[in-house]
Amino acid sequence: MINDKIILGIDPGTTIMGYGLIKVQGKDIELINMGVLHLSKLKSHELKLKRIFERTLQIVEEYKPDEFAVEAPFYGKNVQSMLKLGRAQGVAMSAALYRDVPIFEYSPKKIKMAITGNGNSSKEQVASMLKSLLNIKELPKHLDATDGLAAAVCHYFQRNTSSISKNYSGWKSYITENPKKIK
Amino acid sequence: MINDKIILGIDPGTTIMGYGLIKVQGKDIELINMGVLHLSKLKSHELKLKRIFERTLQIVEEYKPDEFAVEAPFYGKNVQSMLKLGRAQGVAMSAALYRDVPIFEYSPKKIKMAITGNGNSSKEQVASMLKSLLNIKELPKHLDATDGLAAAVCHYFQRNTSSISKNYSGWKSYITENPKKIK
Repeated sequence: MINDKIILGIDPGTTIMGYGLIKVQGKDIELINMGVLHLSKLKSHELKLKRIFERTLQIVEEYKPDEFAVEAPFYGKNVQSMLKLGRAQGVAMSAALYRDVPIFEYSPKKIKMAITGNGNSSKEQVASMLKSLLNIKELPKHLDATDGLAAAVCHYFQRNTSSISKNYSGWKSYITENPKKIK
Repeated sequence: MINDKIILGIDPGTTIMGYGLIKVQGKDIELINMGVLHLSKLKSHELKLKRIFERTLQIVEEYKPDEFAVEAPFYGKNVQSMLKLGRAQGVAMSAALYRDVPIFEYSPKKIKMAITGNGNSSKEQVASMLKSLLNIKELPKHLDATDGLAAAVCHYFQRNTSSISKNYSGWKSYITENPKKIK
């Protein structure tokens, strides 16, 4: 099918990186894998960046995603932390760029809106909705993994609606169109 | 010789990226190449990042630098521009990380201080000093190339002094130790 796609979602950070992979077949989505990368124990910023790059490239090479969705906050506490976050995003994105995987960026608010219908929902609410949506038996210990996964699912909703962003409707239209999926 | 090294210096930006390569043999340094990468015509931020990554990786693979010096401002006008700059730095650094080239960061002020002895010197003053130091016949049209080169030369000074950063002396000690080099 022309719509068969693997989407990799990443939530890059400098202390923890979350990732999730989904397989899209037409209007069905299926969890492939999700996980986190712990970075807080790595001593230098360079070591963290190296780990992010290597792990992301490893994921890209193992699962060969067709599209790469990244959670990208566009604001932050201060310029220092934004520079570091930008670098973390940059190295994760490089792994996709290197393998010619197209990149799509979504703000945290947009991702929450797509998954729960509320741009201000909590990590737990997002995780709980993903659990229902993807029939996940047990949620991971670190919800950063579901944050990565949420980016992938948000991108799936985005793709499945009109290609024009302003027509984007997300979760709500998904429920309407797929009432059987909600458990 | 154990001290033979190729140093790649990069000044990453989102409109232009400058790079310079030097060969270090003991206390002698020699220009290998320098150039700029124009990014302003590329329409999307992702395309810019892709170009930065590809070009940097190409340089790394062509010249096989032993060390990678990057000009890294730690402050900026606003969080937006710092995020973009962080991404540009991140993708350039990824090319080095991918090929296991160690990364060294220097602030613009430290680079200027190393090259001219004045942390507030102009682009032109830095370029002029590099011209003398490396016997460059004609300076490039875009001084961003010399900014990249300056990062490499700054790193050379850093390496040639004590490994302890606070003993770092840069250009001034170089003039004292190498009076014949100054033309």
